[in-house]
Amino acid sequence: MYELGVVYRNIERADRQATDALAAFGSATVHEAMGRVGLMKPYMRPIQQDAQVSGTAVTVLLQPGDNWMMHVAAEQIQLGDIVVATVTAECSDGYFGDLLATSFMARGARALIIEAGVRDTKFLREMGFPVWSRYVSSKGTIKATPGSVNIPIVCAGAWVTPGDVIVADDDGVVCVPKAMAAKTLEAAAKREANEGAKREQLAAGVLGLDMYKMREPLAAAGLKYVG
Amino acid sequence: MYELGVVYRNIERADRQATDALAAFGSATVHEAMGRVGLMKPYMRPIQQDAQVSGTAVTVLLQPGDNWMMHVAAEQIQLGDIVVATVTAECSDGYFGDLLATSFMARGARALIIEAGVRDTKFLREMGFPVWSRYVSSKGTIKATPGSVNIPIVCAGAWVTPGDVIVADDDGVVCVPKAMAAKTLEAAAKREANEGAKREQLAAGVLGLDMYKMREPLAAAGLKYVG
Amino acid sequence: MYELGVVYRNIERADRQATDALAAFGSATVHEAMGRVGLMKPYMRPIQQDAQVSGTAVTVLLQPGDNWMMHVAAEQIQLGDIVVATVTAECSDGYFGDLLATSFMARGARALIIEAGVRDTKFLREMGFPVWSRYVSSKGTIKATPGSVNIPIVCAGAWVTPGDVIVADDDGVVCVPKAMAAKTLEAAAKREANEGAKREQLAAGVLGLDMYKMREPLAAAGLKYVG
Amino acid sequence: MYELGVVYRNIERADRQATDALAAFGSATVHEAMGRVGLMKPYMRPIQQDAQVSGTAVTVLLQPGDNWMMHVAAEQIQLGDIVVATVTAECSDGYFGDLLATSFMARGARALIIEAGVRDTKFLREMGFPVWSRYVSSKGTIKATPGSVNIPIVCAGAWVTPGDVIVADDDGVVCVPKAMAAKTLEAAAKREANEGAKREQLAAGVLGLDMYKMREPLAAAGLKYVG
Amino acid sequence: MYELGVVYRNIERADRQATDALAAFGSATVHEAMGRVGLMKPYMRPIQQDAQVSGTAVTVLLQPGDNWMMHVAAEQIQLGDIVVATVTAECSDGYFGDLLATSFMARGARALIIEAGVRDTKFLREMGFPVWSRYVSSKGTIKATPGSVNIPIVCAGAWVTPGDVIVADDDGVVCVPKAMAAKTLEAAAKREANEGAKREQLAAGVLGLDMYKMREPLAAAGLKYVG
Amino acid sequence: MYELGVVYRNIERADRQATDALAAFGSATVHEAMGRVGLMKPYMRPIQQDAQVSGTAVTVLLQPGDNWMMHVAAEQIQLGDIVVATVTAECSDGYFGDLLATSFMARGARALIIEAGVRDTKFLREMGFPVWSRYVSSKGTIKATPGSVNIPIVCAGAWVTPGDVIVADDDGVVCVPKAMAAKTLEAAAKREANEGAKREQLAAGVLGLDMYKMREPLAAAGLKYVG
Repeated sequence: MYELGVVYRNIERADRQATDALAAFGSATVHEAMGRVGLMKPYMRPIQQDAQVSGTAVTVLLQPGDNWMMHVAAEQIQLGDIVVATVTAECSDGYFGDLLATSFMARGARALIIEAGVRDTKFLREMGFPVWSRYVSSKGTIKATPGSVNIPIVCAGAWVTPGDVIVADDDGVVCVPKAMAAKTLEAAAKREANEGAKREQLAAGVLGLDMYKMREPLAAAGLKYVG
Repeated sequence: MYELGVVYRNIERADRQATDALAAFGSATVHEAMGRVGLMKPYMRPIQQDAQVSGTAVTVLLQPGDNWMMHVAAEQIQLGDIVVATVTAECSDGYFGDLLATSFMARGARALIIEAGVRDTKFLREMGFPVWSRYVSSKGTIKATPGSVNIPIVCAGAWVTPGDVIVADDDGVVCVPKAMAAKTLEAAAKREANEGAKREQLAAGVLGLDMYKMREPLAAAGLKYVG
Repeated sequence: MYELGVVYRNIERADRQATDALAAFGSATVHEAMGRVGLMKPYMRPIQQDAQVSGTAVTVLLQPGDNWMMHVAAEQIQLGDIVVATVTAECSDGYFGDLLATSFMARGARALIIEAGVRDTKFLREMGFPVWSRYVSSKGTIKATPGSVNIPIVCAGAWVTPGDVIVADDDGVVCVPKAMAAKTLEAAAKREANEGAKREQLAAGVLGLDMYKMREPLAAAGLKYVG
Repeated sequence: MYELGVVYRNIERADRQATDALAAFGSATVHEAMGRVGLMKPYMRPIQQDAQVSGTAVTVLLQPGDNWMMHVAAEQIQLGDIVVATVTAECSDGYFGDLLATSFMARGARALIIEAGVRDTKFLREMGFPVWSRYVSSKGTIKATPGSVNIPIVCAGAWVTPGDVIVADDDGVVCVPKAMAAKTLEAAAKREANEGAKREQLAAGVLGLDMYKMREPLAAAGLKYVG
Repeated sequence: MYELGVVYRNIERADRQATDALAAFGSATVHEAMGRVGLMKPYMRPIQQDAQVSGTAVTVLLQPGDNWMMHVAAEQIQLGDIVVATVTAECSDGYFGDLLATSFMARGARALIIEAGVRDTKFLREMGFPVWSRYVSSKGTIKATPGSVNIPIVCAGAWVTPGDVIVADDDGVVCVPKAMAAKTLEAAAKREANEGAKREQLAAGVLGLDMYKMREPLAAAGLKYVG
Repeated sequence: MYELGVVYRNIERADRQATDALAAFGSATVHEAMGRVGLMKPYMRPIQQDAQVSGTAVTVLLQPGDNWMMHVAAEQIQLGDIVVATVTAECSDGYFGDLLATSFMARGARALIIEAGVRDTKFLREMGFPVWSRYVSSKGTIKATPGSVNIPIVCAGAWVTPGDVIVADDDGVVCVPKAMAAKTLEAAAKREANEGAKREQLAAGVLGLDMYKMREPLAAAGLKYVG
C-alpha cells in the first residue's frame, strides 16, 4: 500500500561505485547475476536505441493524468540518479517532455523510467536524455492531486525502493536492491568473464551441446535423434 | 528483488476479526478507505460471479510453466488464508485445477488470487472455491524449479506481504497491509455508514449536484450551461 | 475537437416511438439496417447477460480519473435516456457505481455505455441497471476538472450526437443518428420479417447455398469441389 | 500455406466412438494425455458457461470480413461434427449468428470454434449451440471472396486437419489428430482413473508434498525452510 | 453513422498558411493549445523517426481487407493534403504500399494517417513519405466494396472532418478543426513563446517548484516533507 | 499435434537458388504471389531496420521459459538456413542472445524468427544477425525439458515445415512451402516486372483509377460523386 502525500528527502543511495559499474553489464547479465529476478515487464520500451545506463532510484508515485509530483521529484534528484515513476492506475498520458527533461538533466539525473507515457521524444533523443516508458503520447496532464516521492513503489511489476540501482538498456530495465549492489556487481563480472572464452569457441564453430556437455542430459531427458 | 528457493513458515497474519469483517465492504470501498491505493490491475478477473471474500495472504512465487511451489504452499495454509501467487515472468499456463483446489480447501484456504492461468474452472465453481486470475487455460505445468513461499511479492501491480489482508469481489482485488487492517476497517465502516442515507436521497430523485453541493465549485471551475 | 466545460440543456431527442421499438431488433440487425455502420468497437462488453435495450443518448465527456461530469449529467437525464460517456484519454478507472446508478435510475435512465471502467457490478446487476463498459475496476475517481455534457463525442470508435438512439445487447452497442431512427426501424423490421421464413427452411435442413442461390456465384468465383 | 478456393468433400473422420468418449475428459486432461500439446491459444473463449463437447472437425478458411465459406461448410457437416474456422488475417467481425446456427444444428453440428467474432450470442445460448470464439461482435460480413473448406488450417495456434477430434470446455479447446484418438482416449482414461483416489486423499488433508513424494526432490533442488 | 458509397469532391480546406505553420509546433503543443483535446489514440505510431508534418485532411472510409477507396482518394488529393483513413471494423491488413505512395506523392500529399496496416515500409522511408499507422503488415487487400471519401470519420478515436488540419510527429497525431486553425496557431505560438525563457531557467538549475510557484499549493494540498 | 522429444537430422530443403532469389522480392510480394497466404501474424517485429532475408527453415519447438532446444538446433543448421522457433505456450522470455547468435552465425544461419522474446538486441544488431520476434526481454531461461527440432510447427499463425522457405523484411515474415518455391519465385518475378511501368505512370500523375480501369466497376458498385 502506498503512503500518499509525502516526500522523503534523505534516502540512502546504493554504493556509487558499484552502481556506476553495473551499467556496463546490461540488464540481462545483471538480472541473471541476481538469480533471474528483478526485471520490469517487457512492455517497458526505450524511446531511443543503444542507450545503456545505471543509476540510483528516485521514486515517484503519480496520480492518473497528473504530473505534479514530477516537479516535486526534480528537487530530490542528485547527480547519478535515475527517476523511476509509476501511476496509481493505468494511464497512457504524456507525463514528461522537454522542459522537465531539461530540469532533470540540470539536476544530474541520468534517465527516466516511467510506467506511463512521455512526449517530445524527438527532442529527448536530441538532448541525449534516455527514457524507458510504457507509452508515447502527446496527451498533457494537470497538476491537482499529490502523490509521493521516494516511497517504495511497484513499477512495471518490479519492487523499487528509493536508492536502489536501476540498470536499463535496449533489452529492458532491472532493479538491484541497494544492499545487493556490490554482490551483484561481483556476480555479473564473474558471469561476463566466462563469456569471452565461450564466445570465441562458439564463433569457431564449437557447439553449445559440446561446450556445455549437454548431450548426456538431453539423452537422459529422452531426446531422440531420427535420420 | 525476490528471494528464491525459500519457504517462510511462521508469518504474522493480520488481525483475524478485522480481516474477516473487511469482506462485507468489497474491494471498492476498502481501496477508498485506504486513500485509493492497494488495488491489483483490472486484468485480474473472477472465474465466478458474485463471490466476495477476505482472508490473510499466503504468497507464492512461481517459475514460468512450473507449479511446483503451489504444492509447497498448500502446507503453509491456515484456516482463513487466501493464496496469492505470481510468476517471475508473464505466463498464461493453467497452474491450478481441481486437485490443488481440493487440497487448498481441505487446508482451510478461502480463495486463490493468481497472476497467471487456471483450469478446471467449471469444477472450481461447482465446489465453491473462488478464484481471481489473469488467464483461463488448459495448459499444464511441470515441477522442476523452486520459487518461494511467503516472501513479499508483486502480484498484478500490488505489493503483497505474507499475512496481509486480501479483499476480492467482482470489481477486483485489493491488498490491505496487516498493520492497516483495523484502521482500514474503521474507515470503511464510516464510509459505508454515510452511503445509506445518500442512496435514499438519490433514489428519491435528489441530485448529487445538490447533495454534494457541487454547483458552486463547478461554476468556479468554469462550467457553463447552454439552453 | 471537443468543446470543454459546457453543458447543453436542450437537446433534440430521436422520436420516442422509433427509439423504443428499436430495442427488439438488437445491435446486429440495427447495424445491418443502417448499411453496416454505427457500431462501437467490440471491446465494449456488458457487465450482465441477456440485457437488450434502446434509448436516447445523453453524452458525457470525462477527464482521466475524474467522474465529476457524471453528476452533472444526472440532471440532464430524461425518462428513456441512455448515458454515453467517454474520457479524453484512455482510462480504466471505475467512474460509476451503486450511488450514481441509483441516481441515474431515479432520473429515468435505462442504461450506461462508458468507454472506461465501472464498479459495484454485482450491485448494478441486482438493481437491474444494465451497463456496457470497456473495463471493470474498483479504482475510484476524483472531482477536479470539468469536461462536458451533451456535446457530440466519439465513444469506442462511434460518433454519438446527443439525442441519437443507442441500441445495446450481448453482441455490442450501435448508435443510430436521430434523423435516421424511423427509416432504420423500417429497414430493421423488413430485414427481420424475412428471417422467420428463412429460419424455418434452414431448420428443415435446406442449405443456405440453395436458399440464397449461391452455387452459381461460387462457381463463377472459382470455387472447386474435390471428391 | 493454404490452398484457396477448394472444398474437400470426402474427408476421413476420427473414430466416432473414441471421438465421442473424449468429451467427458475435458480439454485439460486430453491435452495432458497427448503430452501437453495441441491446445489452441487461451484467447479462445466460450460464449456460454459449462458446455463440454467433442466432435470431428470440418475446417473452414475465411477471408477478412467475408463469411461466404460458412454457407459452403454447412453442406459438408455430418452428424457429430464441430466446425473449426479461421481467417486469412486477424478480424473481429461477427461471422456467425442465429441463421447459420440454425442451419449448422439442422445438419448435425455440435459446436463452432472460430478465430474471429460471432453475434446473436443470446440466441445461440438459448438454442443450446455452443461456440468458442476470439471475439463477440455485431459487425456483419459480405460474401465476395472464396476461401476453402476441409483443408488443414491453423486455428488459434493449433494445427487442425479435417476429421481431427476437437474437445472444448470452459478451459479451452484442444485438437487431437485423428490417428491419435484411440490412444489419447486410453491415456486420458488412465490419467483420470488415478485422480479419484488422489482427490479423496487431498480432501482428507493429505498434502501433495507427501502424496507425490516431493519433499526429497525439493530439498535436492535447494528449497530451504525458515522458521 | 457513416454515409457509404459517396465521394465529396469539393471540400473546404483549412486556411493554408495556418495549416502549414502548425507543423513547427508539434502534436503536443497543438493539442495543449486547443485545451487538451483532439488527439488520436497513442496506438497510432510512425513508421519513420523524426518526421513532423501538418496538412489538410482528405478522409477515407475503408472496408475490412479492401483498399479500393485509397485509389478513389488519390484523385481528390491536392497539394498540401494529408490522407486520413479508417476501416469500418478493426483490420490489420496492409492497405498501402509503394505504388499508392508514389501516386499520393505525385498528387501532392504530405503524409498518410491510417487506423489499419501499411506495407513496403522500408521503401516508404526511402522515398520520404511519412506514415502513421496502427499496424505494419505485408497482408494484401482486395478491391470489392465501396466505402467513402471526404465524409467525416472517426480515426483512432478522433473526429476528423474533411479539410481539418492534421499535425503529426513522433509523439502522435492531432486534428484541428478547420474553423479553429488560426486561433489554435495563435495559442500555440503564445505557448511556445513562453517556453524558451522557462527552458533557460530550468537548464540553469532553477526548479519548476519555484518557477511555477508550486510550493504553496502543494502544501495546501497536504504534501508533507520528511527528513 | 506436436511430436515431442525428437530431432530430425535429415530434412529436405527447398531449392537453394529459388530460396535465395526470393529475398529480393520481400514478404508482401511473395505472399501476394502465393495467393495472399502464408504470412505470420503482424505481431512478429524485427529488432533491426531495413534487413531483408530469405533462407530454409530449421524449426524448433520450445518449452515455456526453457531454451534448451536452441542449442540442439544449432547443430542442425546448414549454410543458408533460418531458424524458426515457437513455444508450446505463450512466453515473453528472452530465449536468444549474443552467445547463441555467435553460434548460429558460425554454423551458417542467416536469421532467427521466434514467437517469444530475445535479448542482447544491441549486440545482435552490431553483429548483423537479423531477428524477428514477438518480444524483447532480458529474462533468462532454463534448460530442463526437451521440445523438438525439425518437426512441422505453427509459428505466429503460420504452418512451417522444416526446409520451407522463409522470407522476412520490415513488413513481416512469410513462409513458402518448399514444393512451391520455384513457382512462387516465378509468380513474384512476374508481379514485380509489372510494377516498374506502373510506378512510372503513377509518379507522372496518372491515377490508379485510370491505370487499373476502376471507374466503371466503381460506378457499377454504386459509388456516387458529389460536387
